[in-house]
Amino acid sequence: MQYYKKESKLLVAVDCIIFGFNGETIDILLIKRGFEPEIGKWSLMGGFVQPDESPERSASRVLKELTGLENIFMDQCGVFGKPNRETGERVISIVYYALVDKQKYQNTQNDRYESQWFPLKEIPKLIFDHHDMIDQAIRELQSKAALYPILFKLLPEKFTIPQIATIYENVYQITFDKRNFSRKLNASGILIKLNEKDKENSKRGAYYFRINKDLYKEKVMSFIRHLPSWSIE
Amino acid sequence: MQYYKKESKLLVAVDCIIFGFNGETIDILLIKRGFEPEIGKWSLMGGFVQPDESPERSASRVLKELTGLENIFMDQCGVFGKPNRETGERVISIVYYALVDKQKYQNTQNDRYESQWFPLKEIPKLIFDHHDMIDQAIRELQSKAALYPILFKLLPEKFTIPQIATIYENVYQITFDKRNFSRKLNASGILIKLNEKDKENSKRGAYYFRINKDLYKEKVMSFIRHLPSWSIE
Repeated sequence: MQYYKKESKLLVAVDCIIFGFNGETIDILLIKRGFEPEIGKWSLMGGFVQPDESPERSASRVLKELTGLENIFMDQCGVFGKPNRETGERVISIVYYALVDKQKYQNTQNDRYESQWFPLKEIPKLIFDHHDMIDQAIRELQSKAALYPILFKLLPEKFTIPQIATIYENVYQITFDKRNFSRKLNASGILIKLNEKDKENSKRGAYYFRINKDLYKEKVMSFIRHLPSWSIE
Repeated sequence: MQYYKKESKLLVAVDCIIFGFNGETIDILLIKRGFEPEIGKWSLMGGFVQPDESPERSASRVLKELTGLENIFMDQCGVFGKPNRETGERVISIVYYALVDKQKYQNTQNDRYESQWFPLKEIPKLIFDHHDMIDQAIRELQSKAALYPILFKLLPEKFTIPQIATIYENVYQITFDKRNFSRKLNASGILIKLNEKDKENSKRGAYYFRINKDLYKEKVMSFIRHLPSWSIE
């Protein structure tokens, strides 16, 4: 292992971007940093990769520590490693995002980190390159969600079509024709309509749906067969 | 910086998946590893991240060392960091893929690394988790190419529609209806037809095209407006 010995070792950390949906906006969970440098400033939740753990395990550990949640969908979405990106010492940060159903999160406590949810458009000033990390995570969500129905992970088991539309509008920062969106989604067969309405958010009420897990994979594949979609007028 | 001092440092490397298109298949450039462990076995080209360079700079350096190419499209597509993934010492590897126009590559020499192109379906046995890295890069290509026209980077300035179709078929491992594909692509306005034909690959010849760079961005956006495409029958 002579070849390895002459190489420098580096500090490696993970930072977690935790997305949640509150019914109207997609929010990110931030903490107040508890140590120097930059103590007391808003930050993503992170931690160092330990000798006995993989980076994805570090990310799960960090998520659990902050939210109490386990077995949550997480995916790696970037590496930030410019030599001077932190003011303290050089740290290479591997960035993960998590998609959390906020209904499941509500019961946990996080006084220790002074954690708080912020809508995407109201993110406060963050330390280091954490804003760039969030931008990168959103780009990653946009490209993954074009191929896989991952955004449903932000929703509870039963949800309404206006809720899905709002999530897509938040992620792609555009406005849909709601009737058209609803018609296409219904026609796709990927959703199963329940005999129950959400009456809190409109007079008429909106039917609840759940994902048709049998069709899930097949429908994703049927999208691929239509590629390259970006070239279709 | 007391908090940082108690943390363990780790070896960090990059590995590069270099994709090229030879007209019929998408190929990957592999090398024979030049040091222990696993000396002489087929491997992706890699290198350690140096104290003064970002991981993306390491990846560009590694690509240039092997191919002589600079200013090539590269993107990070995964991190492999299980504590025992290498048999020597623990190394966290950040994986990048590059999309190379093989016409530009042909003039460079790589006797030093015994490098060789292999079609995706004929990859030899590789060291460590390098097969998983390639699988991950292909998934990343599939998802990025659903939103951005990055696959055109594998082509020279002028190219034919059958060439594009072959690239998409290789990446998604499916067979297109060629006439339909050609019709949609022509209708999209993203391509400009040249007054010149490739007569080497068919009797009738196939017209050469180039990308309409003015429309490029706009068309990508028009795709986004059709989301969620995966749900459309």
